[in-house]
Amino acid sequence: MSTWKYDKTVEKWGVFEAEMPGKSEGNPFTDYTVRGTFKSKNETKTVDGFYDGNGTYRIRFMPSFEEAYTFCIKGSFSEETFEGSFTATAPSENNHGPVRVSHRYHLAYEDGKPYYSIGTTCYVWELQKEELQKKTLETLAESAFNKIRFCIFPKHYDYNLGEPISYPYEGTPMDSSVLTTENFMDYVGCPEGNNFDYKRFNVKHFQHIDKCIEKLMDMGIQADLIVMHAYDRWGFSEMSAECDDLYWKYLIARTSAFRNVWWSLANEYDLLTKKTTEDWERYASIICEKDVYGHLRSIHNCKPFYDYSRPWVTHCSIQRQDLYKSAELVNEWRERYKKPVILDEIAYEGNIQHGWGNISGKEMTRRFWEAYLRGGYPGHGETYLNKENILWWSHGGELHGESPERFLFLKRFMEETPAPGLRPMEGQWDEVAATVDEFPSRHKYYMFYYSFMRPSFREYYFDDETEYEVEVIDTWNMTVENRGKFKGKFKIELPGREYMAVRIRGEE
Amino acid sequence: MSTWKYDKTVEKWGVFEAEMPGKSEGNPFTDYTVRGTFKSKNETKTVDGFYDGNGTYRIRFMPSFEEAYTFCIKGSFSEETFEGSFTATAPSENNHGPVRVSHRYHLAYEDGKPYYSIGTTCYVWELQKEELQKKTLETLAESAFNKIRFCIFPKHYDYNLGEPISYPYEGTPMDSSVLTTENFMDYVGCPEGNNFDYKRFNVKHFQHIDKCIEKLMDMGIQADLIVMHAYDRWGFSEMSAECDDLYWKYLIARTSAFRNVWWSLANEYDLLTKKTTEDWERYASIICEKDVYGHLRSIHNCKPFYDYSRPWVTHCSIQRQDLYKSAELVNEWRERYKKPVILDEIAYEGNIQHGWGNISGKEMTRRFWEAYLRGGYPGHGETYLNKENILWWSHGGELHGESPERFLFLKRFMEETPAPGLRPMEGQWDEVAATVDEFPSRHKYYMFYYSFMRPSFREYYFDDETEYEVEVIDTWNMTVENRGKFKGKFKIELPGREYMAVRIRGEE
Repeated sequence: MSTWKYDKTVEKWGVFEAEMPGKSEGNPFTDYTVRGTFKSKNETKTVDGFYDGNGTYRIRFMPSFEEAYTFCIKGSFSEETFEGSFTATAPSENNHGPVRVSHRYHLAYEDGKPYYSIGTTCYVWELQKEELQKKTLETLAESAFNKIRFCIFPKHYDYNLGEPISYPYEGTPMDSSVLTTENFMDYVGCPEGNNFDYKRFNVKHFQHIDKCIEKLMDMGIQADLIVMHAYDRWGFSEMSAECDDLYWKYLIARTSAFRNVWWSLANEYDLLTKKTTEDWERYASIICEKDVYGHLRSIHNCKPFYDYSRPWVTHCSIQRQDLYKSAELVNEWRERYKKPVILDEIAYEGNIQHGWGNISGKEMTRRFWEAYLRGGYPGHGETYLNKENILWWSHGGELHGESPERFLFLKRFMEETPAPGLRPMEGQWDEVAATVDEFPSRHKYYMFYYSFMRPSFREYYFDDETEYEVEVIDTWNMTVENRGKFKGKFKIELPGREYMAVRIRGEE
Repeated sequence: MSTWKYDKTVEKWGVFEAEMPGKSEGNPFTDYTVRGTFKSKNETKTVDGFYDGNGTYRIRFMPSFEEAYTFCIKGSFSEETFEGSFTATAPSENNHGPVRVSHRYHLAYEDGKPYYSIGTTCYVWELQKEELQKKTLETLAESAFNKIRFCIFPKHYDYNLGEPISYPYEGTPMDSSVLTTENFMDYVGCPEGNNFDYKRFNVKHFQHIDKCIEKLMDMGIQADLIVMHAYDRWGFSEMSAECDDLYWKYLIARTSAFRNVWWSLANEYDLLTKKTTEDWERYASIICEKDVYGHLRSIHNCKPFYDYSRPWVTHCSIQRQDLYKSAELVNEWRERYKKPVILDEIAYEGNIQHGWGNISGKEMTRRFWEAYLRGGYPGHGETYLNKENILWWSHGGELHGESPERFLFLKRFMEETPAPGLRPMEGQWDEVAATVDEFPSRHKYYMFYYSFMRPSFREYYFDDETEYEVEVIDTWNMTVENRGKFKGKFKIELPGREYMAVRIRGEE
C-alpha cells in the first residue's frame, strides 16, 4: 500500500488527477479496472479511472466543495491501494462550476451565475491540423459563443472526405483516396478496408480531446460532446453493444471531471439506423451511473425528436423540423417538455448547396432574437463555400458570416436580463413579447421583438403608476436609442424597418 | 303589350340592358318585381331586374352565345309585357368571358384562355373622391393586377373614419366628427345617430358601383365584390335577414350581368358575429339561384376558414392564419379542399402599426413566388403611412411599395406557364419544385424556387434523353440568365443570393 499526499492546488470544480503505474499486457482497456472514492465533509463520490497507454492508469475527480478531500484508489492491475488527500481551494474568477438547469427553462452555473447559452457547431474542429485548431480557438475567443458542439469520432460527409488527425481506435482506416463528392454516400457505415480494434482505444486521440475540452474550459466555453453520430465510414457507428458501452464508460471516465462537459448522446440519433431506443436508453443509464457530477444530457434529432420528456434528458437539443419556422416554435416546445429549449440547429448561415446550410445572416440573427424572447437558447453554424474548403460548421477556422457580430450585441441584452431569463408572455398577436421568467414576476421588465414586421409605431400599457424607460433596439444595425421615460399608456415611434426590438424597464 | 327591337350591338359576354318605365309610389324596391326571360338557340335564362330610381326599372342580361336572342320582360308595376330581340356578336379582343374554375385547381376565362390571378385589395377605392378613383384606375392599368377586392358597403376602421362619397341606403349617417383613432372601436355595428332605411337603396351608390365594375371589366380586371363585412358604423352589418336578402337580390340583379364579377360573401365573415352559418348558407343559395351565370363564389376568413369544401364554394379565398407561414401552406390547402387556392390576404406590404400591415416588399414578393410554384394564386395589399393618409389597402391611389413591379416580372412567367398552371411536385426537401398541373404531364416543364435559401449550386436530373434549357431567375432583381442546354444529370451554378428561381424546359 502506498499513500499519496497530493500537493498541487485543485480548485473547486477543477480537475484532480492521479496517475498510477499498472499493467500493459493483454488489453488494458478491457482486462483491468480502476476505481477511486473521494471523500470530504460534504460529499463522497466513487469514480472510474482509465488506461492512458504506456502502462499508465489515471483517475480524475472534480471536487464540488472548498474543503479537504481524502481518496482511495484501487486498480485490478495491482495489489496496491493508492490513498491520499488534497484540499480544494476557492474557484478562480472565471470558474463558476458546471452548468445546471435553473428555474425549469433556464440554465445557470453551479455558483448561481446565470448562463445564457449562445452555441455554435464545429463538428470536428479538434481533428483538423493544429494551425486550424488554433485559429478556431482564436475565433471563439473573440466571439459571443459560450458553447460548442463537436464530435469525439471523425466525420465522413460532403466536404469531409479527408483523414482526421487521429482515430479513436487502434487500427487503420479504409483508403480515402477512392472518395469523391459523387460516391461518398456509398461508403457509409463500415465499408471494407477498415481494420480497427473497437476494444483498443487510441489514447493519443483521447488525450488530445481532453486538452481541447480543457482549453475550452479555460475560455469559459461549454463542450457539448457529440458522443455518437452516423456520418461515418469507419464502423464507429455500427459497433456492438459491448464496444459501445466500453466507449461510453471510457469517455465518461476520461472527461466527466471537466466542469464544462455536456453529453449529447448523438447528433441526429435517428440516422443511426442500427441503434434502437433501448440502446439510447442504455447509454443514458451508463451516463447517469458513471457521470457522478450530473452534467447536462440530451440527444439531437435529424427529423423526429427524441422523447425529451424522459427523466434523464435535462434539456431539449433541437434541430428545427420545418423549413420556415424554427425559433418561432420555442413556446410550444417549452410547454410540451417543460425543460430548457436549446436550438442546436436552426440552419446554417452560408451558401452551400445543401438546404440546411444556406440562410442569410439576417435570417440567422432573426431566429436568434425569436428564440431569446421566447425563452429558448439559440445555436449557430456557418457553411460558406471557400477555396480552402474550410467550413466553420465542421472544421472551425474563421467566420465569414454577418450574424456572429450580432450575437455579441444580443449577448449584452441576454446578460442584462434579470435571472433566470425571459419567458414569452401574452402580447399582440403579431409580436413576440417577453418578460422575466418568474411567477409572480418581481420585475417590471419587458421586451418586444418585431421580427420581419415593420410597424411605424406601437402603443404600450402596463399600469398607471410605474415610470418606464424605453429603448428602441435595431437588432441588425446594432443600435440602441433611449427614448426616455413614460407612464400609463404611451406610444413609441419606430423606424418602420425590419428586426426592431423594444426594451421597456420599470423602476423597481 | 309593347314590342322592342333592341338594335344596339351586344357582344357575347357583354351586357344587354333594357329600361322600363314603372311606378315610383310606395317602396319600389320591395313593392314591385320585374323578371325577364332571354332565349337563344343555346340558352334560356330568366333573370331579375331592379328599380333604378325616378320610376325607372332596368333588367340586365349577359349572352353566352353568338346568336340571335329574344326576350320577354314582365314587371309587377305594369300590365305591359316588354318583348324584343337582339343579336349577340363576336366578343371584342379583350373579352374572354367570365372566369371559371379550370382543371380543379386553376382558372380560365370561358373562351379557354388561362387566367393567372394576381389580385390586390383596395377595400373602398370606389367610395373615395373622384380624383382618387381616377388615380387608382391609372395605377391598376400600369400594374400586373387582374383582380381587385372591394366592398359594396363603406368601411369604418382605423384610417377609415371619414365619410364615403355615398351610402348604399337612403338616410343619414351618425356624426363622424366624434370619431378619433382612440375611440372608433366604440362605434362599431349600429351606434345611435344613424337613420338609414335598409329597405330603400340609394340608387346613385349602386349606379356608381356598376360603372366602376364596368371600367374594371374594360381593363380586364376581375371585380371581386365583398358583399358583407364587419368594419361598419352604420348598421349595414347588423341588418335583419329580410333586409340582407333584399340587398343580396338587388346587388345580384344589378351586377351579375357583368362578366368580371366574383362574389366574396364577406371579408372576414367570422367577425360578423350576428351572422350564423345558416345565414351564410342562405346568402349562398340566393346567389346560386339568382346569379344565372355562375360567377365565382367564395368567402374570406379572419381567423377560422369557412368550410371551403361546401359545394357552392368555387375556390378558397384565404387569409393566412399564421404570422410566419402563408403561401408555404398552399400545397396543404389544395389537398384539403381540391379547389383553386387564392391567397386574398398574405399580409400587406407597408409600415403601419398593425401586425397585418407591415411586411417588406421582399417578403411579399417571396410569398407570391411561393404561392405560384405551389399551384396557388397570390394576392397583394399595401399599407404605407403617408401624410395624406391614403393607403392603397383601403383607398387606392398610388403604390409606394417595392413588390408591385416584381409582379409584372412574375406575371410574365405565369403567362408562359403551359395551361392549366403549375402544381407542386416532389423535390428536394428544402426547395419548392413545380411542374405543369396535368396527370400525366405532357410537358417537360419544371420550376424551382429557393425562397430565402441561398444555394451556390444545384444538381438536377430528369431523364437521359431530353435536352433541357435552363434559365436562372433572380425574382427580386428581375433578371433572367439563360444557361444553355443540358442533358442527363447536370449541375447549375447559382449566385448564393436569396430569392432565386430556376426554370427548366425540355424539348417537347
